[in-house]
Amino acid sequence: MSNPINVCLVGAGRAAKVHANSLANYLPQASIVVIVDTVPEVLQATAGQFGVRHTFPSLVEAIQKVEFDAVVITTPTFTHHDLAITAAGAGKHVFLEKPMALDLEECDSIINSCQQNNVFLQLGFMRRFDPEFTEAARRIQAGEIGQPMLIKSLTHGPGLPPPWARDLKTSNGMLAEVNSHDWDTVRWLMGSDYRRVYVEVANFKGAARGVDTPNFYDNTLVSISFENGGLGSISGVCPCDYGYDARVEIIGEKGIMQIGELQGQAVIVCTNRDQGLVTPIYRTWPERFAWGYIREMEHFVNCIQTGAHPRVGGADGRWAVAGVLAGTRSFLEERPVYLSEILDNTLGEA
Amino acid sequence: MSNPINVCLVGAGRAAKVHANSLANYLPQASIVVIVDTVPEVLQATAGQFGVRHTFPSLVEAIQKVEFDAVVITTPTFTHHDLAITAAGAGKHVFLEKPMALDLEECDSIINSCQQNNVFLQLGFMRRFDPEFTEAARRIQAGEIGQPMLIKSLTHGPGLPPPWARDLKTSNGMLAEVNSHDWDTVRWLMGSDYRRVYVEVANFKGAARGVDTPNFYDNTLVSISFENGGLGSISGVCPCDYGYDARVEIIGEKGIMQIGELQGQAVIVCTNRDQGLVTPIYRTWPERFAWGYIREMEHFVNCIQTGAHPRVGGADGRWAVAGVLAGTRSFLEERPVYLSEILDNTLGEA
Amino acid sequence: MSNPINVCLVGAGRAAKVHANSLANYLPQASIVVIVDTVPEVLQATAGQFGVRHTFPSLVEAIQKVEFDAVVITTPTFTHHDLAITAAGAGKHVFLEKPMALDLEECDSIINSCQQNNVFLQLGFMRRFDPEFTEAARRIQAGEIGQPMLIKSLTHGPGLPPPWARDLKTSNGMLAEVNSHDWDTVRWLMGSDYRRVYVEVANFKGAARGVDTPNFYDNTLVSISFENGGLGSISGVCPCDYGYDARVEIIGEKGIMQIGELQGQAVIVCTNRDQGLVTPIYRTWPERFAWGYIREMEHFVNCIQTGAHPRVGGADGRWAVAGVLAGTRSFLEERPVYLSEILDNTLGEA
Amino acid sequence: MSNPINVCLVGAGRAAKVHANSLANYLPQASIVVIVDTVPEVLQATAGQFGVRHTFPSLVEAIQKVEFDAVVITTPTFTHHDLAITAAGAGKHVFLEKPMALDLEECDSIINSCQQNNVFLQLGFMRRFDPEFTEAARRIQAGEIGQPMLIKSLTHGPGLPPPWARDLKTSNGMLAEVNSHDWDTVRWLMGSDYRRVYVEVANFKGAARGVDTPNFYDNTLVSISFENGGLGSISGVCPCDYGYDARVEIIGEKGIMQIGELQGQAVIVCTNRDQGLVTPIYRTWPERFAWGYIREMEHFVNCIQTGAHPRVGGADGRWAVAGVLAGTRSFLEERPVYLSEILDNTLGEA
Repeated sequence: MSNPINVCLVGAGRAAKVHANSLANYLPQASIVVIVDTVPEVLQATAGQFGVRHTFPSLVEAIQKVEFDAVVITTPTFTHHDLAITAAGAGKHVFLEKPMALDLEECDSIINSCQQNNVFLQLGFMRRFDPEFTEAARRIQAGEIGQPMLIKSLTHGPGLPPPWARDLKTSNGMLAEVNSHDWDTVRWLMGSDYRRVYVEVANFKGAARGVDTPNFYDNTLVSISFENGGLGSISGVCPCDYGYDARVEIIGEKGIMQIGELQGQAVIVCTNRDQGLVTPIYRTWPERFAWGYIREMEHFVNCIQTGAHPRVGGADGRWAVAGVLAGTRSFLEERPVYLSEILDNTLGEA
Repeated sequence: MSNPINVCLVGAGRAAKVHANSLANYLPQASIVVIVDTVPEVLQATAGQFGVRHTFPSLVEAIQKVEFDAVVITTPTFTHHDLAITAAGAGKHVFLEKPMALDLEECDSIINSCQQNNVFLQLGFMRRFDPEFTEAARRIQAGEIGQPMLIKSLTHGPGLPPPWARDLKTSNGMLAEVNSHDWDTVRWLMGSDYRRVYVEVANFKGAARGVDTPNFYDNTLVSISFENGGLGSISGVCPCDYGYDARVEIIGEKGIMQIGELQGQAVIVCTNRDQGLVTPIYRTWPERFAWGYIREMEHFVNCIQTGAHPRVGGADGRWAVAGVLAGTRSFLEERPVYLSEILDNTLGEA
Repeated sequence: MSNPINVCLVGAGRAAKVHANSLANYLPQASIVVIVDTVPEVLQATAGQFGVRHTFPSLVEAIQKVEFDAVVITTPTFTHHDLAITAAGAGKHVFLEKPMALDLEECDSIINSCQQNNVFLQLGFMRRFDPEFTEAARRIQAGEIGQPMLIKSLTHGPGLPPPWARDLKTSNGMLAEVNSHDWDTVRWLMGSDYRRVYVEVANFKGAARGVDTPNFYDNTLVSISFENGGLGSISGVCPCDYGYDARVEIIGEKGIMQIGELQGQAVIVCTNRDQGLVTPIYRTWPERFAWGYIREMEHFVNCIQTGAHPRVGGADGRWAVAGVLAGTRSFLEERPVYLSEILDNTLGEA
Repeated sequence: MSNPINVCLVGAGRAAKVHANSLANYLPQASIVVIVDTVPEVLQATAGQFGVRHTFPSLVEAIQKVEFDAVVITTPTFTHHDLAITAAGAGKHVFLEKPMALDLEECDSIINSCQQNNVFLQLGFMRRFDPEFTEAARRIQAGEIGQPMLIKSLTHGPGLPPPWARDLKTSNGMLAEVNSHDWDTVRWLMGSDYRRVYVEVANFKGAARGVDTPNFYDNTLVSISFENGGLGSISGVCPCDYGYDARVEIIGEKGIMQIGELQGQAVIVCTNRDQGLVTPIYRTWPERFAWGYIREMEHFVNCIQTGAHPRVGGADGRWAVAGVLAGTRSFLEERPVYLSEILDNTLGEA
């Protein structure tokens, strides 16, 4: 067996604990040796839960004092760029949660830094490792439903996002924080890049929950025209309250495919004929993508051990950010936005 | 178009109203001209609901005073024999609800009378006309799942049966009143007659609902060995309270088939992630078999108009009664009972 | 019972036969007394199938020679206006298939003519009579999922539409011919009118099937912003080849609701573990909406008999046409189109 | 963290590899240090696959030469007793695959030996660790469907069992080899022991596959009367060919519960409206119970580390064997068999 991979968790919150669970409980070939977080209580709680001895308030300090091979970054989006650059600069492989960064310049900087330092960069698109999504992708690529023509992906999340995640100053809002996975999924399964994006948003629940962030929206509907002529739709609802919901539907030239379902577990109960059948729904994303989270981390560790390139990298993360930027401009300017406007702009500034 | 068929409803209760609905609202080629019932209020209510002018307390009187072509008998089982004989003797075609009769002698008498008077006899096995059951039967007969090896059928009904229907003196209990359809279905789809029957029963809810009928049971589980070597299972639960439930599962040499499902309507709602998804169940048998009830009556009317023989007749009703009798003897004597014991007995007495 | 309603079918094709089946086989209170069609073979075939004696090549001739109460118009869209005006002018109640007409001027003219002649006008939006859709609407209106925020409706149809139905000169294309029902459904269930519409279209299969109609599309994706701030999505695929598919999903402030499903019948078969389970899909729209078609015609007949107003009338048909016109302009001009542009235009021209 | 548990796999075949996968890939707290099998090629292949250095043809030799804490026994049933006794005698904790043993004497001997040597005995009833089954059990125990009245459990397996597993001389046939899980499940979820058992069997496919084992059956249907008055049904079909199928349905005084479903993965495809929807089925038991296998081994390891007693032990394995023995006698003697006959017999011979 290969040497175990030593990991530094950067961020100790909810997403960190999902990855820590995979690393500590299901991946014998990896070991969490250090955790970094700026909030001492969160840091100590997570370190205690997973039996990790070393904890630091900064990645720089962790790098100086502990030996490790890779970082798993789960901090807020606006910190991604600097942390990833720091890790790469120290020769650490980078697992980076979505959304990759706030803009394309940051994405490019991260990609370049990882390349120059010869470390791997894997993006946290766990749906690419979910057994249903991967099987579906395999079957689409095998031609089972023919050339995809129309793809719809949705993510509806139960709870109100934290303030930083809904403010367009510190985040790109729900389009990025909730729907990054959908941006990646539709591009992956359509097998084509976005050409043009049109977005409508709505705000139904914000006021009642005291959200006064400008431009806040809790419903979004994205229309995509792909380079290959295909069409795409993404919907986001957050907070949707009713559970965690992630499903995809693809219509190809030869047929239709559905991935995922509302039902969370095959336990069906009926005790009242006026109410009807009751079936569990997925309550949270760690439940829905339990295997996806294990498998993506297993893949990251295997890539480091074997030298194979991660199959979801910086380019994928960058495309999702580009879609989000086009989408945000679309609803702000109330018009369809071409990706060329976003991508040219980058080049122009480069 | 053929002449419309004039029908006399014998019995004006719940089942009568289901058939009246088919005849009055969905079958232009038939007309209800008279209704018979011994309970005046029920009689008048049903007659009023369907705009039928003639009502009588007895079939004999109806025959004497009104012209009609056929009877639809929905009275309690212990009245079936005499009513069917009376109708046949008067040259009326007979649609007879299940269970056909209390014993095989009565069945034979009804069959003989209909034959001698040259009238049709159709049994009320509406599942044979349900779109799902008929399609399933067609596909089984086409060999899709190969030779059936094991068939399971269940009927669970929501409400407590009336006293006459649960007393072994006036009825053959739930095995007959609730599960007659299953006896017919398993024989139909297995394509073989019963050879041996073993029955277990249980009584969980009777006491709490004040049922003091001896030998009452609200749960039953039937094991059948068929002449062709196949196996069968029937379950009955009544009152099950949770809704109306009728499903079949067949394992053939080549595969499995399921007919029916718990879900009553494709309307799914989730408003609470702790509760999960909620989907309607069928509340009652008229809902579940809405098309079956229309189609079986349409078939009966068509047979009369065209002279074709009904495809569910006295022999089918008689077999279901034979199964019930063997099953009842089985749980009373706590042993497997061969159909030959039941059928020989008939011959012996003939 | 009320007097039966005598009906004249205008159009003898596929949709006509669906309505004829309801009228002749399931609605004793109605009678088809005459059929009109310009194609003699189609006319005779349908008349023969339903035993209708009177047939004419024109509605005018039918009106002159036969007595009847109502017309059921199922001819191509571009003929709707003149036929409806003719029928209304002769005092006949009008059942008009969707789409109502080619533009809003035609819609207004039909509405006015029916009002002036004191006849009912019912639009053929049979989903409003489907048991699942009506139950869903009732539950939404009862507040079960709270205020709808986002509604998605899709109609994917199996076969290539006829030439007149895909040419923007004689029809408004798939947005009208296939998705009229969706336009009506989203407005009905959202409880609000469209404010702004954005449409993307794609053409994947046209070339291979020899379609050279300019602006032909076989995939469409509609984004709607409603007056109440809600969002809507409609997708259309035709020909989709894989079956007939009509489903709706609504996210409200309190929860999610799904109406309809891919599965066409609860008959599930598995004969090969490499293939998996196989379940029927609806092959065609008459299968999917069997009850909807019966119920809408029953409603039309009942309205005539009782004097009650049809619950789906000209205003609903007109709104669907307005949506289609905005949508068509959107994809032609590649921009979001406000309904005010379409509606003002009408006023301007009036 | 606790010290890792060192495990010896006894048996290196298919079931062994399922457990090896859990131990090697998903349980950092355990380590496979040695594998035992009498077939050298199988032994080497499995050892190679999981990187285990020590391999022996006998458990005795393994015990002499390697240090370890526990055995995981997956060899044929007729070897269970001697191997378990040997392991317990050497102070090793015992994880024993189902069926526990060939008769009650063997069961008692194993139980006694483990008790006397103060080692844990856990039976391989992985359904008790499946997320759906455990959640269902929790909800039943919480009273959600009231007192269970009727429970049905089925296991249908795809392939023909090996010769030793279908010969009543070396095994108790499918009732034991395939349906052990069902015997355990119905007793667990009913919360009561079996009182009386009646079994029907059939042999449809044996001849065509060259099976000449006397008393071979490929279909079985079990009726159970429980001590608490409840009813139970088990069905077994093997080879069923169509996939791996394990489902349970329970009717309680207050409602119905279903556990598991035919569908194996939420990926639905339709490419042909004449065929319909296609959905994966579980092909094999390791797929269906992927989490159950990991969780049961995790439980075993945790029990050893913490000293807690396994929650599925010898008494549960013994009851399943008693049910199988009663069931086998039932179909051989064609009569219901009381458990008291089986249990008394044991005492009598003791």
